[in-house]
Amino acid sequence: MPPRGRRPVGGSDAREEILTAAGELFAELGFERTTMRAVAARADVDPALIHHYFGNKEGLLGAALVLPVEPAALLAGLDEDPEHAGEVIVRRVLGLWEGEPEIRQRLLGLMRVGVSHEYAAGVLRDLLGRTILTAVARVVADDHRPLRAGLVGTQMGGLLLGRYVLGLPAVRDATPEQLVVAIGPVVQHYLTGPVAGVPD
Amino acid sequence: MPPRGRRPVGGSDAREEILTAAGELFAELGFERTTMRAVAARADVDPALIHHYFGNKEGLLGAALVLPVEPAALLAGLDEDPEHAGEVIVRRVLGLWEGEPEIRQRLLGLMRVGVSHEYAAGVLRDLLGRTILTAVARVVADDHRPLRAGLVGTQMGGLLLGRYVLGLPAVRDATPEQLVVAIGPVVQHYLTGPVAGVPD
Repeated sequence: MPPRGRRPVGGSDAREEILTAAGELFAELGFERTTMRAVAARADVDPALIHHYFGNKEGLLGAALVLPVEPAALLAGLDEDPEHAGEVIVRRVLGLWEGEPEIRQRLLGLMRVGVSHEYAAGVLRDLLGRTILTAVARVVADDHRPLRAGLVGTQMGGLLLGRYVLGLPAVRDATPEQLVVAIGPVVQHYLTGPVAGVPD
Repeated sequence: MPPRGRRPVGGSDAREEILTAAGELFAELGFERTTMRAVAARADVDPALIHHYFGNKEGLLGAALVLPVEPAALLAGLDEDPEHAGEVIVRRVLGLWEGEPEIRQRLLGLMRVGVSHEYAAGVLRDLLGRTILTAVARVVADDHRPLRAGLVGTQMGGLLLGRYVLGLPAVRDATPEQLVVAIGPVVQHYLTGPVAGVPD
């Protein structure tokens, strides 16, 4: 059993404990119903310490909502084989979700909190937006990159929603490679195919 | 002001009031944190009446989680022009979300509660699953219909998530017809194109 009793202000891992507790509570309760007091209680720290590190609840969410993986690792090498970037993205994202259970729990929590409240949705949007736009920019250089990134976001977000949150039968039961075959070409199409048939 | 005081058991619109209150609370609080007592208070009825009509919370959710539109209206005529069913589906679903604000709120609530809890996800999955599979069965007759339905579900769910919940910039800012042009062909591909390249 860890010692009870609150950590002193500035305790070496207190910041990390706060972020872990906040991530858990935001995922369980959503943004609105998570209180600074509850985070402090779960992290076993003084609430003043949370204010000291993160300012307010928005600041805490911004720090707690992080991808549990280095985006650079997900994106590495996409520019070397742009014709297969769609498949590679689907394969890597599924590999991430189906690797360590702890990472999967954190990703599920990220999705739940992002859907729970408009402010949280904005934080998740910025986080995903940057990562996806970076991926797109590695593969294609045209003016439709923001639209391409958004479209990739819809397909990848919907894949994760369908497989891990809702559990749509055929999508839940397929192997990752079957999904790479079925969905990879669509992501590829959004990356490098014609996406804007309507003249501007 | 409506009269306060609880409605008598069996009051003509009490069942409807309960379903409205339940729909709102499930959308606001998710499945787990919505209590029968809170639904009774919001609907201004005796909690026993909820048990009388719906049994338990699962029964109440099953009755409250309904699509705010007749699926038959969304699916009408798809079989007459199967080559354009993808476009038609995207156009009709966006039209539904961008019509009456009250319907949009109910759809958003449906999505939020579906993501909030595994039981609720199951109810939403069954509801969407039936509707999408019916759409697919009108357009194509092969053995891949369940997979096709799941793939259509990922793309349409992700479109709604990206446009209305997360607000991914280019997807949020596009006109409905731009999204019909960009995403319709993908839905069409999932409906009638090759989706299973890996031999069984």
